[in-house]
Amino acid sequence: MPPRPRPPAPRIDLRSPCPIAAALDLIGDAWTLLVIRDLLFFGKHRFADFLASPEGISTNILAERLKRLEERGLVERRRYQERPPRYEYYLTPRGHDLQPVLRELIKWGQAHVPGTAQRPPANVSVAPRPTR
Amino acid sequence: MPPRPRPPAPRIDLRSPCPIAAALDLIGDAWTLLVIRDLLFFGKHRFADFLASPEGISTNILAERLKRLEERGLVERRRYQERPPRYEYYLTPRGHDLQPVLRELIKWGQAHVPGTAQRPPANVSVAPRPTR
Repeated sequence: MPPRPRPPAPRIDLRSPCPIAAALDLIGDAWTLLVIRDLLFFGKHRFADFLASPEGISTNILAERLKRLEERGLVERRRYQERPPRYEYYLTPRGHDLQPVLRELIKWGQAHVPGTAQRPPANVSVAPRPTR
Repeated sequence: MPPRPRPPAPRIDLRSPCPIAAALDLIGDAWTLLVIRDLLFFGKHRFADFLASPEGISTNILAERLKRLEERGLVERRRYQERPPRYEYYLTPRGHDLQPVLRELIKWGQAHVPGTAQRPPANVSVAPRPTR
């Protein structure tokens, strides 16, 4: 089976050509990067797993963010059960490439926000970068 | 004159001890980081300068974000005119330390969002890190 084509480049109306503004157009809200975190560092792939994260994302926000991440080519959905259909979510290369942003956010949060964990939890594992 | 004390550590209710979540509690929206960008890379310090940025932030959102950035110790306000009182805004060390996050966002936006500028504009200059 030939490899599937890459997800299309996201088509969104950019506010300006600034790459910071463009990046924030895609990921600039407080929940989106936590879903990326769960996929990247905690091996989470299912809706219920994201829901169980300590920040307490709501089902409707989670569903909306996963849909948007998929539309924008950062996440892909894979069916793991036929009847009823159930899906798992995986990072695309584009989504995985947010890792350095998250790592810098970790450093900043640890340095500047009192009360943050100074060490990763025991169950952290970094997802490998997908090849397509 | 002795140096003024550092701004107090921001007191906010953290959603979890995760430093990513904590960082996003402070800066996780699409406009805040653009104000930081203008302070850090474009030498902007006055309300009208931020307003003039190409993304078209509104006056009420800008005023709210500047207030929040000041409350959270990322920005400080300095009066430059007495009557009527007018203020300029400057990054604190805590705000300046977001530079690596912005640099990773630039790389990601350039790599993954079609239509973004691949080179910095001619008027970019990096603000020096304040010493206190």
